[in-house]
Amino acid sequence: MARSLISIDDLSNDEIEAIFELADRFLDEMATPGKPYRVRGRRTLARDFILSTLFYEPSTRTRLSFESAMLRLGGQVISSAEGSSSSASKGETIADTVRVVENYADIMVIRHACEGAAMVAADYTDLPVINAGDGGHEHPTQTLCDLYTLRAAHRQKNKGKDLSFNDVTIELRGDLKHGRTVHSLVYALARFGARIIPSHAPGCDLPKHVTQRLARDYNCLLLRKQEIDELGGDEVSSDDFPEFVYVTPQEPHQRTLWTGAEADVWFRLSLEQRKALREMKTVDFFYATRFQRERHEPVDGQDATDDYPAIDVEMLKEKRYRQTQVMHPLPRVDELSYELDQDPRGVYFKQAAYGVPVRMALIAAVLELFPSLLKGSATRRYPIFSNIEGVRCLNSRCVTREVNERRYLVPKFAIVDESPLTLRCAYCDVEYAPQIVSRSTKKRYTDDLSEWREIYDRNPKDLVLFASEQDAIDAGHQRQGGSKSPPPDPVVAAPAAK
Amino acid sequence: MARSLISIDDLSNDEIEAIFELADRFLDEMATPGKPYRVRGRRTLARDFILSTLFYEPSTRTRLSFESAMLRLGGQVISSAEGSSSSASKGETIADTVRVVENYADIMVIRHACEGAAMVAADYTDLPVINAGDGGHEHPTQTLCDLYTLRAAHRQKNKGKDLSFNDVTIELRGDLKHGRTVHSLVYALARFGARIIPSHAPGCDLPKHVTQRLARDYNCLLLRKQEIDELGGDEVSSDDFPEFVYVTPQEPHQRTLWTGAEADVWFRLSLEQRKALREMKTVDFFYATRFQRERHEPVDGQDATDDYPAIDVEMLKEKRYRQTQVMHPLPRVDELSYELDQDPRGVYFKQAAYGVPVRMALIAAVLELFPSLLKGSATRRYPIFSNIEGVRCLNSRCVTREVNERRYLVPKFAIVDESPLTLRCAYCDVEYAPQIVSRSTKKRYTDDLSEWREIYDRNPKDLVLFASEQDAIDAGHQRQGGSKSPPPDPVVAAPAAK
Amino acid sequence: MARSLISIDDLSNDEIEAIFELADRFLDEMATPGKPYRVRGRRTLARDFILSTLFYEPSTRTRLSFESAMLRLGGQVISSAEGSSSSASKGETIADTVRVVENYADIMVIRHACEGAAMVAADYTDLPVINAGDGGHEHPTQTLCDLYTLRAAHRQKNKGKDLSFNDVTIELRGDLKHGRTVHSLVYALARFGARIIPSHAPGCDLPKHVTQRLARDYNCLLLRKQEIDELGGDEVSSDDFPEFVYVTPQEPHQRTLWTGAEADVWFRLSLEQRKALREMKTVDFFYATRFQRERHEPVDGQDATDDYPAIDVEMLKEKRYRQTQVMHPLPRVDELSYELDQDPRGVYFKQAAYGVPVRMALIAAVLELFPSLLKGSATRRYPIFSNIEGVRCLNSRCVTREVNERRYLVPKFAIVDESPLTLRCAYCDVEYAPQIVSRSTKKRYTDDLSEWREIYDRNPKDLVLFASEQDAIDAGHQRQGGSKSPPPDPVVAAPAAK
Repeated sequence: MARSLISIDDLSNDEIEAIFELADRFLDEMATPGKPYRVRGRRTLARDFILSTLFYEPSTRTRLSFESAMLRLGGQVISSAEGSSSSASKGETIADTVRVVENYADIMVIRHACEGAAMVAADYTDLPVINAGDGGHEHPTQTLCDLYTLRAAHRQKNKGKDLSFNDVTIELRGDLKHGRTVHSLVYALARFGARIIPSHAPGCDLPKHVTQRLARDYNCLLLRKQEIDELGGDEVSSDDFPEFVYVTPQEPHQRTLWTGAEADVWFRLSLEQRKALREMKTVDFFYATRFQRERHEPVDGQDATDDYPAIDVEMLKEKRYRQTQVMHPLPRVDELSYELDQDPRGVYFKQAAYGVPVRMALIAAVLELFPSLLKGSATRRYPIFSNIEGVRCLNSRCVTREVNERRYLVPKFAIVDESPLTLRCAYCDVEYAPQIVSRSTKKRYTDDLSEWREIYDRNPKDLVLFASEQDAIDAGHQRQGGSKSPPPDPVVAAPAAK
Repeated sequence: MARSLISIDDLSNDEIEAIFELADRFLDEMATPGKPYRVRGRRTLARDFILSTLFYEPSTRTRLSFESAMLRLGGQVISSAEGSSSSASKGETIADTVRVVENYADIMVIRHACEGAAMVAADYTDLPVINAGDGGHEHPTQTLCDLYTLRAAHRQKNKGKDLSFNDVTIELRGDLKHGRTVHSLVYALARFGARIIPSHAPGCDLPKHVTQRLARDYNCLLLRKQEIDELGGDEVSSDDFPEFVYVTPQEPHQRTLWTGAEADVWFRLSLEQRKALREMKTVDFFYATRFQRERHEPVDGQDATDDYPAIDVEMLKEKRYRQTQVMHPLPRVDELSYELDQDPRGVYFKQAAYGVPVRMALIAAVLELFPSLLKGSATRRYPIFSNIEGVRCLNSRCVTREVNERRYLVPKFAIVDESPLTLRCAYCDVEYAPQIVSRSTKKRYTDDLSEWREIYDRNPKDLVLFASEQDAIDAGHQRQGGSKSPPPDPVVAAPAAK
Repeated sequence: MARSLISIDDLSNDEIEAIFELADRFLDEMATPGKPYRVRGRRTLARDFILSTLFYEPSTRTRLSFESAMLRLGGQVISSAEGSSSSASKGETIADTVRVVENYADIMVIRHACEGAAMVAADYTDLPVINAGDGGHEHPTQTLCDLYTLRAAHRQKNKGKDLSFNDVTIELRGDLKHGRTVHSLVYALARFGARIIPSHAPGCDLPKHVTQRLARDYNCLLLRKQEIDELGGDEVSSDDFPEFVYVTPQEPHQRTLWTGAEADVWFRLSLEQRKALREMKTVDFFYATRFQRERHEPVDGQDATDDYPAIDVEMLKEKRYRQTQVMHPLPRVDELSYELDQDPRGVYFKQAAYGVPVRMALIAAVLELFPSLLKGSATRRYPIFSNIEGVRCLNSRCVTREVNERRYLVPKFAIVDESPLTLRCAYCDVEYAPQIVSRSTKKRYTDDLSEWREIYDRNPKDLVLFASEQDAIDAGHQRQGGSKSPPPDPVVAAPAAK
């Protein structure tokens, strides 16, 4: 079974570190003189392999970066650079394309406008699939490059000290809503225990499902201004921070005091958290992103980028930013001043350079050129609910709602919370709370949500969930014990065995 | 002189079999464990060669398949993936493009919207040219993959028995009018003696020039429902078949009883033919194709695909289809159910996989990496008529009518029948019956068609043919012995020597 | 510091000859049997290198030619074939793109619609950059192919004689205004001492900045019809020539008698010049170009190509053209008859073929695969004036005026003449005469141009030039000793030290 990289969560922390150590090795052996971040020359490691790119959205950087990485490894490349010149324009689905292309290549890299598209690709091929960006969802290889840059820059700045990501405070700037690179990155930062300050542009805050996941999956502690004031005492003031911050636990598997998704309840900080908050007054890294114009709904009469926060030399004169290194996944528009290009704190071109050794290491890992590199296996922590009937994902950019793809895709959800019952789309990660439960065999619905567990445990296929009573009725289900001529209960009708 | 593959008829049956045996060898040596249809790894056979793709129409599958095949052989690839990004947008002709690109590569693969475009390419270069689809005309490498799939699937199904294509009954489904893959395929099937059931969608039957060629060139026997009833006796009924079927002779060079193109005359079947008809009650293969929307004239107020025949699991429950394996050149739209993907009778993804070993073998053959592989030479069976004056092809998609190409292309026709005189466009294969004969030297026309032979035999360049009297007059020719002041016959005026 | 090829002037004559000798060697060793102009096979010289193409404008020929050259050298290629599928559509600048892509490749080839774009690329990367065409500005690798074709054809025609470019008379036909290939070519021809007859289509004469540069930089002697008559005596008549001709000196560094840019003054010819003019009665080469429709402003009601000069067999029957070999950079439209394709005087397809060995040699040279090949270094002959304030380039196609690029680009000019003061845009080579001088520190302007020298010599950064008084006023400068309340002269305000 091939290892794919669809979400940054498909790699364990140890595996990410193993990939980074391989990238270190490639740089040690192949770096350009005087430019320790840039790979030169070609190996013969991947001589027998072909990488296929399937880019349904425009890209120079990411596609060329993958192609360069594969060529530097000694492999070859076949490329489909634009959706419009591919079979997609004849209406071909992702599932069909990958089942054809898997015969032409040994590894696939896909970029697509639909959220969840890369997961569909991985579901339908036995080749390793790498997600090079699926809509506003994730961009995990960018995250690997970002983390590698953080690690390298942090090490260089603090040379001699043995540091890790949990010594890092990072402020995310700009469009946190549609910036897929940001979504993959915050999950990874949280897992590695970094401290996150989300400093979004107006109308561009982190989507709710991302903040919920930060809390639920990674135990991130959200502190708002009021809480900081109440908790910070003499040492920390809310003036030191934007609207709110995330404090991530150093031990990800140890629950914090904070329990809900909303975090608007009163609580006390541990000593460790208090220390983290104090250290967040100095920012180690900016992570700036451009306004993702192509993913925003157009707004009449005003340019959404008018108030977009820009990073320039002036701003970096503030005390808390004086040592701040500036990252950016590029391309930039206006949010990052060209003056910074000569400033040693601007590390964004190195960040782009690291794309090659990191992608070389990733390709080498999933192609098993170094067999014992990926020891773990991606684990799904939540039970999966999937029924062709009932709840569908409401995210209009989700691959399950695309007109071609929905002809064959069955909605699939992770049950991420049992009370209140909460579903997370397995493709695009958006979360929903269903209101109605029914059985596919009996077609009797109820709003007593407690019934779902019993149905699911007996036969997961028999569980049908609806967003509303009307949806259930529209789908031909009837209220349990309802007044309208209740049909007799079919005792025999057992769920169809698979 | 390089060997090109423009029409499937450019390869003899023996040569096709030689290519298939080489493809077998590549699969034996390079197949993925557990997937005997998929090539992996890279050879060094074509190390010194570059393949150029010139794709004027969008494609993922075919282009990547060729690129993968060339890379697996150890060669390199340069690609022009879309007409709009090439010199074509500056008005460059095919003839000019190939005479430039022949200096950059060792073999060319061309796809173009004009019918006959690949032949123009081959006419103007000394490199081997492979037709990867020219409008609705031909797609011979798809046909090689189809035949190879048929051969492999048929062998696997009947293991232990020594079988050949003339044991095969194949039902063609869908758009037989514009599906170029179908046109190349029926010619090949006829040549190999397979039995063909054309089961077209409404308004999508085989073009007349294809059915005429099936009769004329390959001696295919067309049986309509009435004839089947009259001939089938107790054993065969017209209820077993759609509108009509083709029975192809096992000995292609032996004329059948049937003589005309229309086949609506009464005749008797040979014993062999009767046996073939009996066996056609069980269908070995479906060959489904999508509706070629981009080649159809748009029809007001109704969707032409409403009645388009779909193949699904339900349909395969019919007795005569129970063992039927389903092929499809892909991409599919709605004509092939996704349920079939898991059914062992669906072999269309294997068909795509076979594209690599088959194209590897073809490239190796035309590049003469195995020198004695292509022993024969493509033969033109019909005399060629070519005159810059007179009849031009009427097919609006023919390359000779494209605004840029017609600046230099001289119409060229095969004389496929002498009585009635019938021309077949040498580029797009559409057939015409000229009405008027004249001499280019004397400019005297007549509707006595018998004169053409004498003129042609003396000097082919002197023969001028017109579709109508008006065309002849418009071109400045005058009626022989006409009333309007007949000019004196210039005795000396001999045809110009070449 | 990497050697780039942005303008043909970046290579010395000796370096061009060294590149041609390497191309000869590649052809000696790798040419196809019977086709001494076409390279076959692959070397391993560039095995460790990757070439990146960045084509923001459509191209087949040039891109594939570079890719083929790199592959024949044994290298690998990554390609971005169209602006629309790259990050450019997200608003990325050239400077950012090359600083990212330099990490993926070892050499870059760029084509762009903006004039001067390739120079921007070279300014922002430490990789060698090759200009594959920047708007209507230059196309130096086409010029290398053109010169190599001239040299080969001239040698073949005069076999046994030791010839050089200064024995060559070449007539340039067609769109000399927007044909970038023509601009690079005339500079090179002038440098090598060839005799040039510019025979432009109506409205398509050489741009003024090109003719000025021919005079200023290469000492080209412009002769108009009247002058030819007055000077030619019995031997030469203006009927032998089109509107005017260029006589280039055999010793480029020796000034001719002719001094001004306009050349409408009376003068006398040297003996050598008289001999050259006599020999120009026979044309050795035609250099035809297509009408560059995409760079012309559309003209209402008439097709600009109606009077476009075409070259055909009939025309070549004229006495002075009987031995004329016909070149064309291709693609052609209507300006070159297809009849010539079979005529031995048509050498344009060989010209295309030479693209591969010449580009192989160029790539090998800039990658230093043969270390001592490029001995010289590109020299800037003129002092550079650059100030963020003041004069900007007025050429609407100049890269400094493109909406994205001007966010970071500072205008840069060569001071090509001191009296009258004349600036040449360092990016697009268009020339301007500023009217107003000011100091950036004092903001006092004057129309006494003589002051500029003193300011420049003290501190080049302090010099501000304006095209008009209004521009100076708009930029907040005040007339020196002006009536409107002159502010006190700030004595202390010294120019900021760099």
